This record gives sequence, C-alpha cells and structure tokens, in this order.
Amino acid sequence: MLGKREPEVYGNKDYAALCDEIVAFGSSIGAGVEVVQSNFEGEIVEFIHNASDKFAGIVINPAAFTHYSYAIADALRAVNTPAIEVHISNVHAREEFRQKSVTAAACVGQISGFGVESYKLAIQYLSTI
Amino acid sequence: MLGKREPEVYGNKDYAALCDEIVAFGSSIGAGVEVVQSNFEGEIVEFIHNASDKFAGIVINPAAFTHYSYAIADALRAVNTPAIEVHISNVHAREEFRQKSVTAAACVGQISGFGVESYKLAIQYLSTI
Amino acid sequence: MLGKREPEVYGNKDYAALCDEIVAFGSSIGAGVEVVQSNFEGEIVEFIHNASDKFAGIVINPAAFTHYSYAIADALRAVNTPAIEVHISNVHAREEFRQKSVTAAACVGQISGFGVESYKLAIQYLSTI
Amino acid sequence: MLGKREPEVYGNKDYAALCDEIVAFGSSIGAGVEVVQSNFEGEIVEFIHNASDKFAGIVINPAAFTHYSYAIADALRAVNTPAIEVHISNVHAREEFRQKSVTAAACVGQISGFGVESYKLAIQYLSTI
Amino acid sequence: MLGKREPEVYGNKDYAALCDEIVAFGSSIGAGVEVVQSNFEGEIVEFIHNASDKFAGIVINPAAFTHYSYAIADALRAVNTPAIEVHISNVHAREEFRQKSVTAAACVGQISGFGVESYKLAIQYLSTI
Amino acid sequence: MLGKREPEVYGNKDYAALCDEIVAFGSSIGAGVEVVQSNFEGEIVEFIHNASDKFAGIVINPAAFTHYSYAIADALRAVNTPAIEVHISNVHAREEFRQKSVTAAACVGQISGFGVESYKLAIQYLSTI
Amino acid sequence: MLGKREPEVYGNKDYAALCDEIVAFGSSIGAGVEVVQSNFEGEIVEFIHNASDKFAGIVINPAAFTHYSYAIADALRAVNTPAIEVHISNVHAREEFRQKSVTAAACVGQISGFGVESYKLAIQYLSTI
Amino acid sequence: MLGKREPEVYGNKDYAALCDEIVAFGSSIGAGVEVVQSNFEGEIVEFIHNASDKFAGIVINPAAFTHYSYAIADALRAVNTPAIEVHISNVHAREEFRQKSVTAAACVGQISGFGVESYKLAIQYLSTI
Amino acid sequence: MLGKREPEVYGNKDYAALCDEIVAFGSSIGAGVEVVQSNFEGEIVEFIHNASDKFAGIVINPAAFTHYSYAIADALRAVNTPAIEVHISNVHAREEFRQKSVTAAACVGQISGFGVESYKLAIQYLSTI
Amino acid sequence: MLGKREPEVYGNKDYAALCDEIVAFGSSIGAGVEVVQSNFEGEIVEFIHNASDKFAGIVINPAAFTHYSYAIADALRAVNTPAIEVHISNVHAREEFRQKSVTAAACVGQISGFGVESYKLAIQYLSTI
Amino acid sequence: MLGKREPEVYGNKDYAALCDEIVAFGSSIGAGVEVVQSNFEGEIVEFIHNASDKFAGIVINPAAFTHYSYAIADALRAVNTPAIEVHISNVHAREEFRQKSVTAAACVGQISGFGVESYKLAIQYLSTI
Amino acid sequence: MLGKREPEVYGNKDYAALCDEIVAFGSSIGAGVEVVQSNFEGEIVEFIHNASDKFAGIVINPAAFTHYSYAIADALRAVNTPAIEVHISNVHAREEFRQKSVTAAACVGQISGFGVESYKLAIQYLSTI
Repeated sequence: MLGKREPEVYGNKDYAALCDEIVAFGSSIGAGVEVVQSNFEGEIVEFIHNASDKFAGIVINPAAFTHYSYAIADALRAVNTPAIEVHISNVHAREEFRQKSVTAAACVGQISGFGVESYKLAIQYLSTI
Repeated sequence: MLGKREPEVYGNKDYAALCDEIVAFGSSIGAGVEVVQSNFEGEIVEFIHNASDKFAGIVINPAAFTHYSYAIADALRAVNTPAIEVHISNVHAREEFRQKSVTAAACVGQISGFGVESYKLAIQYLSTI
Repeated sequence: MLGKREPEVYGNKDYAALCDEIVAFGSSIGAGVEVVQSNFEGEIVEFIHNASDKFAGIVINPAAFTHYSYAIADALRAVNTPAIEVHISNVHAREEFRQKSVTAAACVGQISGFGVESYKLAIQYLSTI
Repeated sequence: MLGKREPEVYGNKDYAALCDEIVAFGSSIGAGVEVVQSNFEGEIVEFIHNASDKFAGIVINPAAFTHYSYAIADALRAVNTPAIEVHISNVHAREEFRQKSVTAAACVGQISGFGVESYKLAIQYLSTI
Repeated sequence: MLGKREPEVYGNKDYAALCDEIVAFGSSIGAGVEVVQSNFEGEIVEFIHNASDKFAGIVINPAAFTHYSYAIADALRAVNTPAIEVHISNVHAREEFRQKSVTAAACVGQISGFGVESYKLAIQYLSTI
Repeated sequence: MLGKREPEVYGNKDYAALCDEIVAFGSSIGAGVEVVQSNFEGEIVEFIHNASDKFAGIVINPAAFTHYSYAIADALRAVNTPAIEVHISNVHAREEFRQKSVTAAACVGQISGFGVESYKLAIQYLSTI
Repeated sequence: MLGKREPEVYGNKDYAALCDEIVAFGSSIGAGVEVVQSNFEGEIVEFIHNASDKFAGIVINPAAFTHYSYAIADALRAVNTPAIEVHISNVHAREEFRQKSVTAAACVGQISGFGVESYKLAIQYLSTI
Repeated sequence: MLGKREPEVYGNKDYAALCDEIVAFGSSIGAGVEVVQSNFEGEIVEFIHNASDKFAGIVINPAAFTHYSYAIADALRAVNTPAIEVHISNVHAREEFRQKSVTAAACVGQISGFGVESYKLAIQYLSTI
Repeated sequence: MLGKREPEVYGNKDYAALCDEIVAFGSSIGAGVEVVQSNFEGEIVEFIHNASDKFAGIVINPAAFTHYSYAIADALRAVNTPAIEVHISNVHAREEFRQKSVTAAACVGQISGFGVESYKLAIQYLSTI
Repeated sequence: MLGKREPEVYGNKDYAALCDEIVAFGSSIGAGVEVVQSNFEGEIVEFIHNASDKFAGIVINPAAFTHYSYAIADALRAVNTPAIEVHISNVHAREEFRQKSVTAAACVGQISGFGVESYKLAIQYLSTI
Repeated sequence: MLGKREPEVYGNKDYAALCDEIVAFGSSIGAGVEVVQSNFEGEIVEFIHNASDKFAGIVINPAAFTHYSYAIADALRAVNTPAIEVHISNVHAREEFRQKSVTAAACVGQISGFGVESYKLAIQYLSTI
Repeated sequence: MLGKREPEVYGNKDYAALCDEIVAFGSSIGAGVEVVQSNFEGEIVEFIHNASDKFAGIVINPAAFTHYSYAIADALRAVNTPAIEVHISNVHAREEFRQKSVTAAACVGQISGFGVESYKLAIQYLSTI
C-alpha cells in the first residue's frame, strides 16, 4: 500500500519505484538484491528460512510485525545469515508502541528514519562484510 | 576509554584510530568532519548549540546519556541542524535499559549495531541531503 | 467455528445463517454486502486493501486479532474507506485482555455487545454516510 | 456545553437540537424517549434507579464519568433495565485515559464514534428487544 | 437499591429494615444512631463535616466511593470524630478494584464481610471508646 | 473545613478570613473577585460553565478532585475562559497521589505551595492578561 | 514479642495479658477460646488443619504472613471452618505493602485497626453464627 | 528449522527424525499420530478446527505463538478435543517473555523442558483418557 | 488435606491413596519412590538437600510455595539432582498469581494439569535418564 | 537557546531580554536579582550551594533536569534558602515525562505555565517572606 | 549447602570452615561470636528474638528470605539490638529479584559482595559501637 | 555541603574532618588514600578513568548519581580497578528512589548505612586484596 499511505510520513514513492531504486542501488555497488513482500507472518518466516541458503544477508522491514512477532524474531535467530532491520520513518519518534522492537534484537543492527535510504545504507553495510 | 573497554563488545580499535578512520571516511566522500568528545552532559549540550551554526549535520553517540538525558534531547530539538544518533553495538540486543532512547526521538533517525560503520553510514546519509 | 463455540456467549446461530442474515439485512436497506472470513492475519490485511477500491465501508470483527494485530490496524489506517469494528459479545465485560483494542483506534468507531445486531447497526450507519 | 465545546470533535449541533433529534428519531420508530442530563454523579445514579421502573432501556453517555465512576457502574448493575453506553466521539482513538471504561462492563454493550447516530443506533437496538 | 441488588451478595434485607435493625441495635447498647444516605459525594462530605459536631463517631460505608473518592478521605481526615469504614461483603474477596480503599486510611479501622453485622460491630466498638 | 484542618499544613486562617483576604487583594489591584465553594463535583462543573460568561478568568483549587475528576477537567477544556489551578500546600512534596493532576492540563498553569498567596499570585497574573 | 514492639503502634499490653483478655472475653459470652501462636508458617498451616475439626471458627492474625503467604491462604480455603482475619493496627493506614492481604480473601471478612478489640469483635461475630 | 537451530537448546535431532520418533512412539502404545507443521498462525487455527473431528487429542507446540496468539488460544477453546501444550526446552527457565503462555490456559495442561520426551509424555497421557 | 479440598479441582483421591498409587506406579516401572510431605518451607529445603545424596531425581509439587519461595528455588539450584515440578491442576488456567513459578526455573521442566498422572509422567521421565 | 527554540511554546523573547525583564522587575519591587545559567548539572548544584549564603531566595527553572536530577533536588534540600521552581510553559499539559518533577518536592512550591511571568510571580512571592 | 553450591559465585570454603573463620576473626578483635543457621523462617525469627537479650548485635544473611520475608523484617524491627545484613555475593549485580531487600530496611545497614569478608566487616563495625 | 545537611541523617562531621578521618584511617593500615569530590558527573567519570592507572581500588559514594547515572556505571565497568560503592546512610531504609542503584552492579560490592565507617570498611577490604 506504499504510496497511498500517509505520504507526509512515508514519502511519495510508490512500491514498485521503491523496489526498483533499491535493486538499482544494489547493482551500482555490485550486490544482487531480491525484493519480496508479504502480509503473512508465516510467509515472512519462510522467506527468512529460504534466504539463509541463498543470500549473504537479509534486509528486513517487519512493519507492524516489528512490535509483536516473536515468530519472526525466532526465525531470524535460527538462521546464520546476518540481518538488518530497517524502517522508513524514525520509529523512535512515533507512537509509544512503535518504539519497542522484538525483532531488532535478532539482527546485527537497526537503521531507522532515513526513508528509502534506510534500505540502501543496510545493503551497503552488508556488501562490506 | 574505547579500546580498553570490553573488546568483545566494542571491537579493538582505540579512540584515536576511530576518529582518524571517521575523518578519513568523511574526506573520501568530500565531507568535512570534526570530532568532539566529552563526559560532561553540559558540554555536549554546548557542542550541539555551537554545531548548529557551523555544521550541516550532527552525528551523535550519546553513550549512557542516551537513556536518561532529557537535557541533550532538548538541545537537539532546539537546533535546526539534522542529527543522527549512532551506536557501535546493537542497543536493541543488550540490557533492557539500553533499549530505551530519550534522545533518538529528537533526531532524524538512529543507526545501531555496525561498529565504526555506524558513524560512516550516518555521515554518508548526511552528505546526501 | 461459530455455532459450536460457547453458545451462552455467542448465541446459537451458525456461521452461514449469520452471513445470510447480514446480507439480507443489507439488501433490505439497499446496501450490497459481501462477507469474507479468514483465520489468516495476512489475508485479512489483503481483504482490507482490496475492499478500499470496491466498497464504501468496511465492517470488521477482528476477533482475537483485535488485541494484538498492529498489522491489521496499520492496514485500516492505510486505506481511506471508513471501517467499523464490531463484536458479538460485550468485550468490555469479558476478560481483561479483551478490553484492549489496537484496531478500534483505526476505525470510525466500535459497536460491541449486540450479537448479530452489532453487524447490522454498523451496516446501517455506513449506509447513511 | 455541547455546541461550544471543541466542534472539530463533537460536531456543531447544540444540546437542544441534539435532544430534539434523538426524541424525534425515537418517535419515528415508535419509541418514547426522555432525555435527562446532569453534571452530578449522584443525580445520574438516581436517574438510573428511577429509570428502572419507568423505561425498557437506558442509553447512557457517562462522559468523563465513564473512566472512574464505579458508583454509576454499580447503579447500572443494581437495576435490571438493559443499558447501552454511547459516545459521540471514538473513545478508542483519543487519549489513553478515555479508552478505559468502568461503566461499559455494566451495560449490554457500547457504541462509540458515530456522533449523534450513536444515540440513535442504541435506541434502535433497544426497540428491537 | 439494597434488597433488589444481587441478593446472593448483599443478602435479602431491604434498606429500611437494615436501618431499623442498626438503630435498634444502637438503642440496645445505649447508643443513639442516626442513619443518612446519599448518592452524592458532596453530600457525604457534608454529612461528615456536620457529624463532627454532633456525634461521637462515624460509621461509613462509602460503597463505590471507597475506591476513588479522595474527597471523602480528605473530609474524614479533616474532622476529629473517629470513623470506621464498614462493608457488607468481604471486599478482599471480590474484584481487584474493590480491594483498594482510599478512604480506610482516614479511619480508625475497617470491618468488612459480615453483612449488617459489620455495622453493629462498628457501633459496638465506638460505644466503648 | 479550612481552619480546623491540619493547621501545620494549611495554616491558621479560617475560610471566611481567606475569602476576605482574597477579595480584598483583588480590589487592591482593581479586579472584581467572586468566591464560590462546593463539595459537589457537579456544582463545580456548573460554576465553570457559568463563569465562562461572566468572568475574565477562573482561579480554581480543585482540592481532592485535582487527582481524579476528569469531569472538572473536561469542563475547563470546554470553556474559553483561562483558568489557573492553585494549591495552598506544595502538592509536589506531599503523598504520591497528590502529585498527579488531571485538571492542571486544562489550565493555563498551576501555582502550588504558597498558602493564600497562591490565590493572589493567580489573580495578579489574570489581571495582566 | 508483643509488648516490647513499638508500643505507639501496638499498645502496651504484653502477650500473656492479651491472651488472657481474649479468653476471658470469650468466656463472658460463652465461647471457648484457645490461643495458639507460632512464627512458623508450616505450624500455622497445621493449626488451621487441626482447628477445622475442633472449632466452630478461626480468628487469625497472620501478621507479616498476611502479605505473602499463599500457603496460609490455601490452608484457610481448604477447611470449611469460617475464619476471620484480624489486625491490631489499621493496616490500611500503614506502609503500602501492609495494605495488600493475600489471606483475607480466604476468610469471611477482615477486622483491622481496633487493638485487642479486633479479636473480641471477631469472636463476638463467630458466636452469633 | 529444527536441527540447525541452537543445538545446545533444542538438541541435535532434525525435524524428520523428530517426527518419526514421535509417530513410532505413538504406534508402540497403539496411538495413531499425525504430525503437521506450519509457520502460519491461520493454518494452525485450521489444523485445530479440523483435528477436532478426526482426533481424540491435540498435542501442540505453539513455539513463538505461545506468547501472543490469542487466535490460537481461542481456536483451542472453541473445540472440545483435549489439547496439551508442549515445549522442548524449559520455558520457565528462559527469557521473561517465554514464561508467559496465552495458549496454555486453553489446554488440559502443559509439559515443558523434556526435549522430544515432552511430546511422548503428552501422547501417553492422551492415550489413557 | 487432599481429598477434602475442593474435589472439583483436585479430584477425589485422598492423600494416602495418592501416595500408594504413585509408589505402585514407580514399582511397575522399576523405580523406587519415597514420598515426603511438609507444610514447612524449611523442611522442604532439607528434603531437597537430603534427596541429593539418595535419589536420582526429585519430583516436587511446591503447592503455594511455587509462587514465592526463593528459598526452595535456591535449594533446587544448589543440588545436582534433576528435579521436575508437577501440579495436579493446570496452573496456567487458574488465578493470575498461580501462573508465576519461581521454582520451575530451577527444575528440568514442569508438568501441570494432569491430576495424579502429572506425578507419574515425571517419574517415568526420570526413569529414562 | 531561548528565542530560537520553538517560539510557539516558549514565546519570542530572547534570553538577554528575558534576563533584563526579570532584573528590572526585581528592581521595581526593591529586590536585587542575579541571573545565572548553565547547561551543567554540577554547576547548577554549585550555584545553589553558593546562593545559600548570599540570597534570601532561589528561583530555579531546572529545564530538562526537572525530571531526573536527584542531584539538584538534594542540593536544594541541603540549603536553608527557600527555593521556587518555575516553568515558562505549563508542564502539566505537555509530554508525560515533563509532568514528573523530582526537584519541586525540594522547593517551597512550583509556578508553571505563565511565560516570563512565572519568574516574576516567584520573585514577588519571595519578596514578601 | 555452602561449598557445593556454585563455587564460582560463593567461593570454595565449606560451611564449617566459614563458621570457624568468622568466630576466629571475632576472637581476634575481642568479640564473642555465635553462629546459628536454619532453613526455617520461623526459627530465624526466634533466633532474632532470643539474640536481643544475649548479644550486642546481629549479623544476618537472610539468603533467599531477603527478598520476601516480611516476618524476618518485622522481627528485626521488634528488637532493639542493631542488626547488619550481609551477603557473600554482590546482590546488586545478580538477578533482578535479588536486588530487592525487604529486610535491609530493618537493619543498620547492608554489606554485600565481599565473600566471607562481608561477615567480618559487619562484626568489626559492631565491635566499635 | 556535608555538615550542614540534615545532621540527623548524615551526622555532624564536616567535609574536611571527614576527609582527614578517612585519610588517617588509610595511613593507620598502610593504605595511601586520595580524596576527590565533584558535583559534575563528567568529572567523576574522569576521576574513575584516571584512578584506574594510579590506584589499587576505588571507593565511591555516587550520592544522588547512584540512582540514575548510567555514565558513571559504564565508567566503572570500563576500568579494571575494583570499586566499592559506599553510602553514609542506609539507602535501603530511605525513600523508594534511593533503594535503586544503577552503579552498584558495576562494583565489587556495596556498603551502606555506617556513617563515615562505611568508607573505612571499604578501604580496609581493598587493603586485603
């Protein structure tokens, strides 16, 4: 739903453009990037399991799942692939419940507040390790 | 005290090397970087006030002040210069009290968990805005 | 599972009869009603996204998701279609955890405690706006 | 004070018009409606005691008393007349303290967020039982 | 409303009989007893103020006000007349919110759980001091 | 009950003298002052509603209501007349429950701890706006 | 240790005198009273089990055990003999932790604050049932 | 992911071996066992609904869902088939959040800490009822 | 007191029969079982210390001590003998305070809700290690 | 930073003008006023220690320190000079954390919400004692 | 159990050696020391009562009772003999529940973290008063 | 400010005398002691950093910083020099907030409640390791 959803918070880029920009950025620094998306917690858990065999790193924006999905957190802990949690908006400056992350503890780190740049900074970091 | 302090958490680089690496990185992307450090909350508040006139952005690692210094948070709110909070270790995976940040809400965003790369990612972001 | 589940709480109507009654009520006041159901949080999120293009309003009974699904709450916030949260039983008179709704804040309002009439009252309201 | 009080929240109808509209709606569906109002918790308790002999149902908007008046809750519990709690605004989307209702547990249900329609939906429901 | 209200909790005596029984008990031990009742917190505060000039002691059953009326607690603290808080049912064995008393701290003591005997035990104690 | 009540906290002036002193102070700076008092929350709400048409400002000491009366807070919010909350004693240095004010948020500000001077400082401020 | 312990709180009677006074009071109203005392939670549990066969009622002052001994509470629940919890001082006016009773919920009621009279009032009540 | 995931906690058996061992154990005591697995909360809810028609009992390890899935808890409550919650590790000795179970209250009981034996003990119990 | 105590919760077997059944079960699988019981926390601590020299395992039902006895928890931690905490009823489905166990963290695991079978399942597990 | 900082909250006067206005007000009522300012908690503590020998009273605006500086609170308690806490904005109507003051309990009282007038009201009060 | 129990925490001395060392230390500074030990809370309470007649001071290590035994705290308050609470390990650096002491408030002070030296420091202090 | 500050709590010795007594005590047991003092958190952090090179141990009384200075706690953790936290008064028997120490966890142990003797006991302990 990106692009329609509260543009003052999430900016005006739509989802496809966001994906293109991220993949293009990856290419520009020699990193192959595959973008997947799901509203299903179970599917995200499976993405993580599968990614652990195919990718050197995971950049994950768990959206609302950030705040309560112990299932995703456990999936991230179960794989060896390093993961980075990213958020488009600065979760630390939004509602109280958005400041608590149960998934970040299962990641290398968290990057929050830089719009689509959050994704790029994460990819850039992964490309250096 | 960096360098001596729990190397398994903070890595082995000492403070001078850390500063050099950060300044060098800034230069490499055309950004002038000045590093200041203080154990005094009041001095950090003054750094922020002064920086607002001289710099295009602030990268701040408030260390233990992250968790209780409303004074630093208010100082960051009082200036127009964009600030980014960085942490060397992943605060979301450490002790409970380290997961609460009163200063991040006063910043553009937070980057946590990437060692000295946290600083570089922040500088890189600031150089693009 | 409606119909089998604790009849003293939810009444004796089974699910199909409930759907029929609701659709019939809609027809009686000139409102087209489509009933969907899912145990999958992700599917409910997609129902909401899709409904925003096809319907003038959403009547949602998030059942147990009421109390923890920030994902559904965010989906409701992301669409412009007005939504009404309904509950068959009076959640304010049941267990403590059932009194907290994270999804109602993303709706126009909440109707709770009137059995299948909760749905009808919601449809009736939507038909007047 | 309705009418003057924060119109963006409560709409522009003044109190007399609100009463007229509610009574008229009652008439239109064959239900006799009597409107009483008080700023006194004790008087509201007495309204409830008296209503139990004269009316088939109670529609109550306890306003600020919603959140702390155990006396009104106990009064509602002590009578056999079914009561419905209504709110003009959506209490679930307002300040934290407005989301807690000590009186709703003593009612059949709660209708919240539909302006003056909240009252009408409640009356309509009562007329069907 | 005593007498109608949940007889399994409060017993079957109605209010008038309760008053008579209490006054009669007072007489039997030589104590003049005057019974007042109000649903108005403000009126109860005034009862307390007035009682301080006319009576040797106050037996008070603050009902639902027990749990939140700092005004009654302050009124009891402001007078020198000793007061005893009584409850017909055992508040310590009922709902959580009924176990907290803000008024008992302003009394000599509390007697809870003995039906109308709670009043008599309190009067008996006051007659001995 | 002022004057009798714990003199070490509230000082020795009785209520009439307090009123006289406040009215006299008002006169001395050219401000007409009317003093009303009630133990009834509902009556206080009505004082506020009425005052909004007749007075340029409200000085209110909500006593125990400070800590739980959302009804008074809502009344203060509903009128345009500026209000100042005053306390004779320093509520911030007394029992925990006295440090929480639900009414001050609906006022211009709060003055606490200066005895009868709290009232005068409030009147003086109102006379300057 | 009664008698030595903080006389301003517990009065000046020593333990033996207290026992004598209580037994004598029992005799005066025709009730046989046996006084047992123990600092051992386990022994108190056994007193309760044994008392259930020999006595018509239990008057218990669980002292500090009041606030945390679920074992004593369970013992009281396991027997059919009615029990009354008594306290010499008014626990509702003392430290926070003394206001919470885990044992009172397992009793008929609680009498708190009347010195040795607390015991007598309890015995008197038991003699009437 | 069993088998890879933190062997010091979960032991070294992989998922297929675990299933075989459980099914074999069932056979050895004459109990037919069917093993299903899903990362999807909705699918688990459907397993439960379906199982209620085909099986005499349910042995469920809700993994991370244990701690927040009211949906699974409600599904277990809605069916008559007895369920037992099992955990491979001792959840009571792990992180704070793992000690809270919202699903166990909807089961006959919980068995936690015995590795794959937890499953067998549960099956054995079900075979005796 | 087992046998008398709330049969709907604990079943109808009395204590001696329970012991016999448990010992007989042990014999049937070749395990020597000794049953001890005490209402004294200190005695239970000593049972644990002594058991560590004589037995291969401890099956403990700490009853009410489960919820607050850090002394028993520390005793279990101090010995090397593996312990299993058992409960006759499902503590996860009873009062809030019964869901917290301070002793289970010091055990191999917990088995809760299976009546006397809870003991047998524990013994069976211990006989396999 | 006053003057730049969020003018809608703090008004438009800059710091120098604020100081001048306060000193001038002091002169107008015959009170010598000295203004000091620091971002250093330690320096503020020393101001307080020094002020106790030279001034008849202290007017302190602890800004963000209000909410966590036990050091300043202890310093205020350690001197005999009466202190008044002032705030430019109404802290009771701002963020939750700003409503808690650890320093006000160490003062005579608190004046909050009247802009620069807060300072003047405080000075005026001190000049009368 | 000292000596066996987690040597990395409590050191390697066994209980008898610990006692000897403490008594010997007492002798070396002219202080008679008697060591008692019990796992029974009631017995510890009696030790305290008895000690008050025979000893000039009490050195108490309440072990797990530190965190919940109001009975021991009350016993310490009831005697005039000064008591010092000691801990072998640094309770402030261990589990959360070990940081709360209900007994230390009833002592002169607390010494925590110095192994057997904690006892000696306490004895030394008592010998000087 | 020692010496002036609440003598009933802190005793009558002034700061210089306290320092002299501590240094003299150190000399008497052959330990060189240097006393530093600061109201500046930052300066205390630097004392700790510097002390780590020059001293065998640190005795620190963090005063009000005890309760919130994570900066001092981190400084103590960063150096290898053993530190002991001391308090003149018994913090466990004072206000709630004084019972929480964030710095003690970074020390060997804590000594609290023995006046100036707290310092001496700490020095004596350090001289033995």
